[in-house]
Amino acid sequence: MELVIKNGKVVMPGGVFEANVAVENGKIVSLGKTEPKADKIVDAGGKLVLPGLIDSHSHIAQPFQGALPKETWETGSVSAAFGGITTVIDFAAQFDPITYEKLGVMGDIKRKEEIAGKQSVIDFSFHGIFVDFSDMNAVLREMEEVVNYGYPSFKEFMTYLLLAISDWNLYLMLNKSREVGATVGVHAENYSLEEGMVKKFVEEGKKEPKYHPLSKPNLVEAEAIQRAIILAEWAKSRIYIAHMSTKEGVELVRNARMRGAAVYAETCPQYLTLTDDLYERPDGANFIISPPLRKKEDNEALWRALAEGYVALYGSDHVPLPSEAKMAAKSFNETPNGAPGNELMLPILYSEGVNKGRITLPRLVEVSSLNASKLFGLYPKKGLIAPGFDADIVILDHKLKKKVRLEDLHMDIDYVNWEGWELTGWPTTVISRGALVIEEGQLVGKPGHGKPVRGKIDEGIIKTVR
Amino acid sequence: MELVIKNGKVVMPGGVFEANVAVENGKIVSLGKTEPKADKIVDAGGKLVLPGLIDSHSHIAQPFQGALPKETWETGSVSAAFGGITTVIDFAAQFDPITYEKLGVMGDIKRKEEIAGKQSVIDFSFHGIFVDFSDMNAVLREMEEVVNYGYPSFKEFMTYLLLAISDWNLYLMLNKSREVGATVGVHAENYSLEEGMVKKFVEEGKKEPKYHPLSKPNLVEAEAIQRAIILAEWAKSRIYIAHMSTKEGVELVRNARMRGAAVYAETCPQYLTLTDDLYERPDGANFIISPPLRKKEDNEALWRALAEGYVALYGSDHVPLPSEAKMAAKSFNETPNGAPGNELMLPILYSEGVNKGRITLPRLVEVSSLNASKLFGLYPKKGLIAPGFDADIVILDHKLKKKVRLEDLHMDIDYVNWEGWELTGWPTTVISRGALVIEEGQLVGKPGHGKPVRGKIDEGIIKTVR
Amino acid sequence: MELVIKNGKVVMPGGVFEANVAVENGKIVSLGKTEPKADKIVDAGGKLVLPGLIDSHSHIAQPFQGALPKETWETGSVSAAFGGITTVIDFAAQFDPITYEKLGVMGDIKRKEEIAGKQSVIDFSFHGIFVDFSDMNAVLREMEEVVNYGYPSFKEFMTYLLLAISDWNLYLMLNKSREVGATVGVHAENYSLEEGMVKKFVEEGKKEPKYHPLSKPNLVEAEAIQRAIILAEWAKSRIYIAHMSTKEGVELVRNARMRGAAVYAETCPQYLTLTDDLYERPDGANFIISPPLRKKEDNEALWRALAEGYVALYGSDHVPLPSEAKMAAKSFNETPNGAPGNELMLPILYSEGVNKGRITLPRLVEVSSLNASKLFGLYPKKGLIAPGFDADIVILDHKLKKKVRLEDLHMDIDYVNWEGWELTGWPTTVISRGALVIEEGQLVGKPGHGKPVRGKIDEGIIKTVR
Amino acid sequence: MELVIKNGKVVMPGGVFEANVAVENGKIVSLGKTEPKADKIVDAGGKLVLPGLIDSHSHIAQPFQGALPKETWETGSVSAAFGGITTVIDFAAQFDPITYEKLGVMGDIKRKEEIAGKQSVIDFSFHGIFVDFSDMNAVLREMEEVVNYGYPSFKEFMTYLLLAISDWNLYLMLNKSREVGATVGVHAENYSLEEGMVKKFVEEGKKEPKYHPLSKPNLVEAEAIQRAIILAEWAKSRIYIAHMSTKEGVELVRNARMRGAAVYAETCPQYLTLTDDLYERPDGANFIISPPLRKKEDNEALWRALAEGYVALYGSDHVPLPSEAKMAAKSFNETPNGAPGNELMLPILYSEGVNKGRITLPRLVEVSSLNASKLFGLYPKKGLIAPGFDADIVILDHKLKKKVRLEDLHMDIDYVNWEGWELTGWPTTVISRGALVIEEGQLVGKPGHGKPVRGKIDEGIIKTVR
Repeated sequence: MELVIKNGKVVMPGGVFEANVAVENGKIVSLGKTEPKADKIVDAGGKLVLPGLIDSHSHIAQPFQGALPKETWETGSVSAAFGGITTVIDFAAQFDPITYEKLGVMGDIKRKEEIAGKQSVIDFSFHGIFVDFSDMNAVLREMEEVVNYGYPSFKEFMTYLLLAISDWNLYLMLNKSREVGATVGVHAENYSLEEGMVKKFVEEGKKEPKYHPLSKPNLVEAEAIQRAIILAEWAKSRIYIAHMSTKEGVELVRNARMRGAAVYAETCPQYLTLTDDLYERPDGANFIISPPLRKKEDNEALWRALAEGYVALYGSDHVPLPSEAKMAAKSFNETPNGAPGNELMLPILYSEGVNKGRITLPRLVEVSSLNASKLFGLYPKKGLIAPGFDADIVILDHKLKKKVRLEDLHMDIDYVNWEGWELTGWPTTVISRGALVIEEGQLVGKPGHGKPVRGKIDEGIIKTVR
Repeated sequence: MELVIKNGKVVMPGGVFEANVAVENGKIVSLGKTEPKADKIVDAGGKLVLPGLIDSHSHIAQPFQGALPKETWETGSVSAAFGGITTVIDFAAQFDPITYEKLGVMGDIKRKEEIAGKQSVIDFSFHGIFVDFSDMNAVLREMEEVVNYGYPSFKEFMTYLLLAISDWNLYLMLNKSREVGATVGVHAENYSLEEGMVKKFVEEGKKEPKYHPLSKPNLVEAEAIQRAIILAEWAKSRIYIAHMSTKEGVELVRNARMRGAAVYAETCPQYLTLTDDLYERPDGANFIISPPLRKKEDNEALWRALAEGYVALYGSDHVPLPSEAKMAAKSFNETPNGAPGNELMLPILYSEGVNKGRITLPRLVEVSSLNASKLFGLYPKKGLIAPGFDADIVILDHKLKKKVRLEDLHMDIDYVNWEGWELTGWPTTVISRGALVIEEGQLVGKPGHGKPVRGKIDEGIIKTVR
Repeated sequence: MELVIKNGKVVMPGGVFEANVAVENGKIVSLGKTEPKADKIVDAGGKLVLPGLIDSHSHIAQPFQGALPKETWETGSVSAAFGGITTVIDFAAQFDPITYEKLGVMGDIKRKEEIAGKQSVIDFSFHGIFVDFSDMNAVLREMEEVVNYGYPSFKEFMTYLLLAISDWNLYLMLNKSREVGATVGVHAENYSLEEGMVKKFVEEGKKEPKYHPLSKPNLVEAEAIQRAIILAEWAKSRIYIAHMSTKEGVELVRNARMRGAAVYAETCPQYLTLTDDLYERPDGANFIISPPLRKKEDNEALWRALAEGYVALYGSDHVPLPSEAKMAAKSFNETPNGAPGNELMLPILYSEGVNKGRITLPRLVEVSSLNASKLFGLYPKKGLIAPGFDADIVILDHKLKKKVRLEDLHMDIDYVNWEGWELTGWPTTVISRGALVIEEGQLVGKPGHGKPVRGKIDEGIIKTVR
Repeated sequence: MELVIKNGKVVMPGGVFEANVAVENGKIVSLGKTEPKADKIVDAGGKLVLPGLIDSHSHIAQPFQGALPKETWETGSVSAAFGGITTVIDFAAQFDPITYEKLGVMGDIKRKEEIAGKQSVIDFSFHGIFVDFSDMNAVLREMEEVVNYGYPSFKEFMTYLLLAISDWNLYLMLNKSREVGATVGVHAENYSLEEGMVKKFVEEGKKEPKYHPLSKPNLVEAEAIQRAIILAEWAKSRIYIAHMSTKEGVELVRNARMRGAAVYAETCPQYLTLTDDLYERPDGANFIISPPLRKKEDNEALWRALAEGYVALYGSDHVPLPSEAKMAAKSFNETPNGAPGNELMLPILYSEGVNKGRITLPRLVEVSSLNASKLFGLYPKKGLIAPGFDADIVILDHKLKKKVRLEDLHMDIDYVNWEGWELTGWPTTVISRGALVIEEGQLVGKPGHGKPVRGKIDEGIIKTVR
């Protein structure tokens, strides 16, 4: 064996088992009580051994709304790894975000595969994003091409000027996704409503960050979610609701699931733990993300949904925009949207979720790894500790309690929105395809280790997603 | 290793993996791509390797309503094993069913542990049954004693003269179950209604088997289920609905789950596949069971519920009453209730469920094994193929197609209600704690191999039951 | 004309109109702007003119659980009239409540028709009550006889020792009611549960009035309601839930109505306005009624249901048991159940309902008069101010504000459970079949004026009940 | 008295009464058994006497999509009167439909008041329509002006190029409506979806009428309805869903009402009785209306909703476009939308509704008259036969059976979509403010009799709408 992880408590959907995990050629070859001989032994020392997280929503090194990140695929993938992530699903869009050159989704995939392939310390995949719908036939053809290439998932914007997809075009994409075996997701916000509200506030001189959530009340998300769901129901397709933030969204997804609709919602650490009173702080601009932070009752509704199965995915929506750029904006609506956080993914989910009794450990691995694998075509490579799967493994010291301090983190950014939070449960060792990326808290991975994860969706296994 | 099962496709809640399973001291020690040296190698030859079934509802060798079975714990456990079952959860009642001597639940447990311990080829556990409520304090104390002894589950009758529990006593038991960590189940039928209807038919001279379902319309079950659920909701306890047969039951369980109630329903092969027109056949009396067979639409509602999670358990309700005794009765209401079937448990669930696309393989292992293990205190010994678990394993030849013929079966009984059905997917090899019970279709197990499985309920793991 | 009521605001289901109401031969002959010549002119002086209330639930002069009222049909009908009531629907039971002589429902009807016919100042009708089910065929035959005689409604007890009906017998009565055109109601409480809880409290020495509601938690009513509803759904009959007290009941009725079930609930002033903290008062025993008083949230749920249509009836459940008898009991469970209140029916509904914006005036006449008329066979005689209907009219001084003081009331009783409440809106003049019963607050009616109101149910008009 | 209608059965929300109706100065002064002296006696001869219908949705004499009607306000109001209608609620829009001159809603009101005031034989009112949202502040100001002028209702298009309102602007109007006491309605269709589908069919050369419903599947309406509802819920305002056509719409309205939302749906005779197979006929183009005709199951869902209260309004959506213009179009999407039908309003509702047992007579007057009066500010002038209300009365010969034949009708149009239907129940006499418009089937009304009905909404009485 090239590697054995011993003395761990292995977490699987069916339960938690004391077992040693043996790895050969980057793949898990066995798990069990026996301790095979190996070139390298990692002693988990009674800690939890989890499948590495799949970040279903990531924007590594991505400029947005005019703001440039310092982050590179190297630093962004390193912070992801420290967050327990072994695969990031990033985005491939039609246009270069700086030059606006039209690369096509396939073009952006090739470009990002090259960059990430050189820099990333962990594996990566992509959701395609279309924003130019002037030739829908071309869009639908390219969808199929992207699926055939190995990335069977897409995410579309229902909001943002120049990016938003029309209901008809979304309906066409949903139909196409059913035919070609893809999963289409949406950033669900109603553009008309938020544009109207933003304009109104700005005209009234109300420009502080606290007007950001007021310009996007829960209605803005709820309307878009119900629209996306009904379109998917009529297209007889799946739909994935990205970064869901509201209790109304939970209710809509739940009702749709009761009707038998194939709706899969994702939420993020920020929507589970942060609230909109933060916008009142002097650094309120740092929390400007879309959808905005909500109320305590929304947090709690999302936790319950995560436990019960109405939220199936946990993504970071990591956007590494510098505080400097966010704080400099003269109005909430000119503030670049997004905030970093991939490095805290596992600590937050374990500490606030498992440790506080809101979700079980088996549920943690479903929402943070297995479900994304199934829904986005990474299965049966990623998402489980099981023979034949890639040896993407994280050892979690579930008793380790630490305060979040920006200076201790590896994100190349000037703020973190959980500064000062005390979290229990931190990854200590992270393994990607059998190779150590982080060992006892030290980075040992190498840029260029990461590889693209291409695959196709198994429609049978998706039926087991909850 | 004492045993390795190689070349199988191992089915787990997270998916299906090609892996070899190694066994030492009766426990699974590893599963993986490696092939450890072993005293005994079983080559699964590409077949499915499943955790042995846990029959959540079994009446091995049990007399009922005056009818005596020929079956013994030896023959009954053998036919169970041929049905893919490696653990039966049978019943321990307060009274001897023939002499009516009061043994107490503990007394019956001891007696049955001894008998089954000598005769059974597979492991066994018990649900306690109380029917004498003259001293409820004594009942509640004995409940606790039984739980502490290692059998934390009970099943009560809401119907049957002399057996039925009152709402108040059920409410007390549910409250007690919450305190002591037990699961209480019910045979949910409304006694008043069925007694009234039976009497009416009999008075009118309507005594043929076809009046059996008419005397227990879906209402009879539905009313009792909704009553059991509301009692459990107010007791803030779990409830287990045994052998659910109706679409109305599915709806009630679903609505209760939506409200957050901890309701777990079981169904049986007969309620998934047989219908009430069978009562019109000359051998209609053989189908007299309670609840009775229903309509096609009930079958289908139960299949969907099994897939979606509103039915969590699959038990046989095997009652080995001879056809002779059933056919001899002069009226449907004098016919002893119950019919045999444990030998067809896995073939029916695979053939009609997985093979027809109604449920997935991972779901099959949840409903037929894992969930019962969690709900009835067998976890973490039974219910999974995972390191540390008992090596209770069944190899399923999922391509094998065979007609059901009584003469080919091992049940010591004179009829089988699926005679002539062609089923795809039959167990070929069955292993109990590492010991072969059936090898390539031949019985090799020995009476006395079976052991009682005592344990306690893990309240955390129950939250993962769906 | 024998009578004209002029200058009033007439309240009808469609709205409120300024009109004069003309009466001839005890019937309304016209309403309009014209002012016909008349022997007697009553000037309403801008006050509200309503159809006289129909008290759907009344126990005038009835002994209960060993306690004897001082009230007679004369005094009880007088206090009813002061409460705006012009028709009481009382009860006719099989047994004499003191001697336990079996009169039969028909026998009790005849007896009560005679007594009330001599004493009552207002009209009266009856719900039949069966409690002896030893010969159900006889019960069903008598049901038909009672319906044919002119009283097509029944109310059965699901609780109380010796009175409770079994599920089967209730199911038979519901089926019969569908065939003969009757409405069957239930006192919905689960006997087993309340008996168990009462016994437990008493054994623990907990005998104060505050244990009364604890011995009948909302569960006790909710379980019985859901049982009654499912029985009626299967019998394809109507069901009337008497004196509903819980928010859970509202939810059950609402869900049933959504499914299309013909469920009609009644509530009472006490369940709309009083709460269970009153049991802690020194005179707590006076509030011992069944079902017991509940919480503020139950009150509010009932008000909303009354407004939205899920509660269709407003009855008093007036039981004139003396405080003396109630306070003398040594334990809450020995306290005779029931309390008086018919004299406050209209003031409470107007003051707390209309005046506080919870219901509209048109809704007030539906729930307090029109719906009872339709559901219990009084239509088209009672329940509306419309040509051809009996001139049963109440003039309500909707601006009159008065404190409730026992000494001001006409009920022949030693307490009133709303003592000290300030209510706005009191009847000043009450007319029964064109005859003044109360004129400007003074009793002018005569014992013996009241007549039985016999009729049959119009199945078409019942469809308009909400 | 100037007029008495005697020997009729007067239909009111509370029931049906034999009464004579007396009229003075155009208003009802009394109803009753008495028969006042009068200048004119109309003998109803045992027929039904109903409040004249209020057509909540009318486009008299209105050009649309380039097609010119022959109809004038004279002929259109005459055919309405023959349909039992005594008040039409027409539309006042910002632009002249032929010249596209911008008149403003107030301008169009003044113009139409003048034209209709000269030509109409019955009364009229208007819903305002805004389509130019370039200055929303001006729109909101004009809304208030229109409300103050006496027309407190509006209807907006969610579809049609150049007419559709954005979500934000609709939200603003809904908020404004709450502040100024108006009712806002919507033509609920999703523009993006239907535009996409139309384009697709046309590109594929699929231009026949049968592609009309295929280009607007139920989804197109359902999505828009759910969007309109959620906007109204957040605006805490009422919303009126015009001409609802789908079972999905019924479900959405029902769920919204269960949540307490103030949603009022209207349907039309065509959606209750016609189905989309009619598009296959040679004259299929005549049935091109929006929303399109649906399936039998949609018809039935709408009937049930009309009975149960989830549809509260019954309007004609009468559009008098000539068949010539419709049949001439080269493609379904170039066919002018709309079809005539006001003359059959009452016969269809009585014949298919009351006569077939789907709705009761009291419900008929609610949905065809009273509810529109309450929701659109005509109350307490119109909608009831009650003292003080306008004497707008229709006598319905509910036993008269006649075949629909274009040549017998008064609509100035070359087709009728119910040609050949046998209907039972036809108006014989129609009275507007005490003046005979139709007497025993003969037109006796005069152009210029009709008057505008201006008023304001009574928020209290709206709570009684069902």
